[in-house]
Amino acid sequence: MNSRLVYLDHNATTPLHPLVKNSLIQELDSHFGNPSSIHWAGRKAKNLIRNARQNLSELFSVSPLELIFTSGASESNNTVIQTLFLNLKNRTEYICSAIEHPSVLKTMQHIESLGALVHRIPVSREGQLDLEFYQNVLSEKTALVSVMLANNETGNLFPIKRMAEMAHEKGALFHTDAVQGLGKIDVNLKDLGVDYASFSAHKFYALKGSGLLYCKKSSPQFPFLFGGAQERSRRGGTENVLGIMTFGLMAKMKKEITEESLRLEKLRDHMQQQILKLIPNTRVTGSSKNRLPNTLSLVIDGIDGETLLMNLDIKGFAVSTGAACSSGNPEPSPVLLAMGLSRAEAQGSLRVSLGWQNTEDEINDFIKELVLSVQRLRLIDTEFQKDFEL
Amino acid sequence: MNSRLVYLDHNATTPLHPLVKNSLIQELDSHFGNPSSIHWAGRKAKNLIRNARQNLSELFSVSPLELIFTSGASESNNTVIQTLFLNLKNRTEYICSAIEHPSVLKTMQHIESLGALVHRIPVSREGQLDLEFYQNVLSEKTALVSVMLANNETGNLFPIKRMAEMAHEKGALFHTDAVQGLGKIDVNLKDLGVDYASFSAHKFYALKGSGLLYCKKSSPQFPFLFGGAQERSRRGGTENVLGIMTFGLMAKMKKEITEESLRLEKLRDHMQQQILKLIPNTRVTGSSKNRLPNTLSLVIDGIDGETLLMNLDIKGFAVSTGAACSSGNPEPSPVLLAMGLSRAEAQGSLRVSLGWQNTEDEINDFIKELVLSVQRLRLIDTEFQKDFEL
Repeated sequence: MNSRLVYLDHNATTPLHPLVKNSLIQELDSHFGNPSSIHWAGRKAKNLIRNARQNLSELFSVSPLELIFTSGASESNNTVIQTLFLNLKNRTEYICSAIEHPSVLKTMQHIESLGALVHRIPVSREGQLDLEFYQNVLSEKTALVSVMLANNETGNLFPIKRMAEMAHEKGALFHTDAVQGLGKIDVNLKDLGVDYASFSAHKFYALKGSGLLYCKKSSPQFPFLFGGAQERSRRGGTENVLGIMTFGLMAKMKKEITEESLRLEKLRDHMQQQILKLIPNTRVTGSSKNRLPNTLSLVIDGIDGETLLMNLDIKGFAVSTGAACSSGNPEPSPVLLAMGLSRAEAQGSLRVSLGWQNTEDEINDFIKELVLSVQRLRLIDTEFQKDFEL
Repeated sequence: MNSRLVYLDHNATTPLHPLVKNSLIQELDSHFGNPSSIHWAGRKAKNLIRNARQNLSELFSVSPLELIFTSGASESNNTVIQTLFLNLKNRTEYICSAIEHPSVLKTMQHIESLGALVHRIPVSREGQLDLEFYQNVLSEKTALVSVMLANNETGNLFPIKRMAEMAHEKGALFHTDAVQGLGKIDVNLKDLGVDYASFSAHKFYALKGSGLLYCKKSSPQFPFLFGGAQERSRRGGTENVLGIMTFGLMAKMKKEITEESLRLEKLRDHMQQQILKLIPNTRVTGSSKNRLPNTLSLVIDGIDGETLLMNLDIKGFAVSTGAACSSGNPEPSPVLLAMGLSRAEAQGSLRVSLGWQNTEDEINDFIKELVLSVQRLRLIDTEFQKDFEL
């Protein structure tokens, strides 16, 4: 393996921010207490959680009491869908997009098996949700709509504010899995007008094992994890104190989010332009207009994404593919298939997602290596086909 | 506050083990990858989880595939109780002890509200479960029995092996919340013969936000958190990689567990003897025979536990009381009340739980300070009563 490692898979997870790392090393000793204890050890831990909650509430323009710390966005998503299904008996229909994260899609399947009617909004090849379909299935029977803020695969953004208004007109609740937006675009929950939103610390340069559930004060809330009186009895279990601390530290970086997004967008656009110019038969997946500034999703014809990923990996470049087991799953990305890509196209997909620590040099090196790798793989493929024909 | 801080509340949470701390500082950079990614960053994280799972399986004498990483024991407890209630339709009765952790008691209340019949085994003042009651309520209708391995408050141990056999005779499943046993006594799950067991990393000198659910291979298993294919699709959500790593490191300390337990038992017995000798009208709560080696639970007559705790806290000693909001809850400990202690007794309770970093000097200092604090508080109380009478 090349000694130089270039990480270009920030939609999967992010490295720790240097500030987070320094802070962690400093606090490893002093904040081990149980926040529920009233002695010195507990108070230190409790203060740390209070500060983090305050920082996050300012980042999202909401009240600290509207934020519940969870183990991650998957738990947040499960909490909203499972508890509303259990408790809202008058409304039994649910709506999500066809390209949600598995923690939404599979939880929807779960409540479907228990009797809920679930509508899935189709998405076009250009990454647009079918809003006419959405309007048609929305009704007085709709309990909850769950649509992500931005798609993890393509980076495409969805019109959450408008969709939440449409849901509210029918008296339905609205949840957004906002994981991919955090740290990449401004996420103002008050302005978005949603009832619930899910976030994950580890996609925002903080520790794994910590997430957030926003519950608007006036919206129904039910516990999913029963236990101690933590989080005002809304989520039991000793808090992941250090995870929460790192999450809170990142929440103060509003300025960095804006600056880095502008920088990464330029870098991403440069990368896209070069790749499309230098590698024939390559195209962007979804809309290239309305998307996260850091994400580039491509289909490269005649290439097996997994083989390409492994070739790049040997050279030290970490990227992702919607092709295969990049999420431990041997099937092609359900997102790309739902967008109408063929299995062959999905097999040839490549996702590059940039982060705050990436440099222009790294991206230029990556472009060179990608061009070489694709040429090599296409050549092998051609040779193989020749051999086969002879 | 005294500059010297002495932590004596290890049943609430433990400080990080020095080895864990060093390892964390070393690994902060190298293991940030998403274990589901197939590139170098993902593989490093995945290997780390595999090693931790292997270590833990050896500690518990089970197969690595029988272990599911969760966000903590509260999630593990919720998972077992909630999913079995949802999926086992032929059996609708549940049994737990009256002194379980809130994550069991409240989850039982939750399924009770959904139609389950829940039996709670009473416990005597001496900390003995009423096994005759247990035998009488066990039946072919029992889905699950959930009884903790050791009580957090008194440290009393329960006859889990025998109780699991009794459950199995009726075809019922058996779960144990084994949180308080881990790191203090040998926990051999194969020998205990339970179907499910819950553990928490942060009560074992590792990070908060990481727990474990043991599911015996042949016992029914259903996901609680739906999402990605993590944990063989049994628990969705990106793994808390560093939490799991620290948990796995601690799992290798079988020898230290034995040695420290012997050392702490002597220290605890010395402390108990001195306190009972030097402070009149003081007694041990529950059984002083069959209990965790590190735990001492006392009732000190005529003392308000919370006031005592705060007095000790000012001197730098962190202890716990079953009196009040030591768990964010203004009510006296339900455990002590269930054991038949009066509210006044529960208000005067004190729990000292020792850990691997405690020294004999610390304990002797604590005994001295406790004696002085109790004398002072009892004197104030007497003076106050005199004033009141005049």
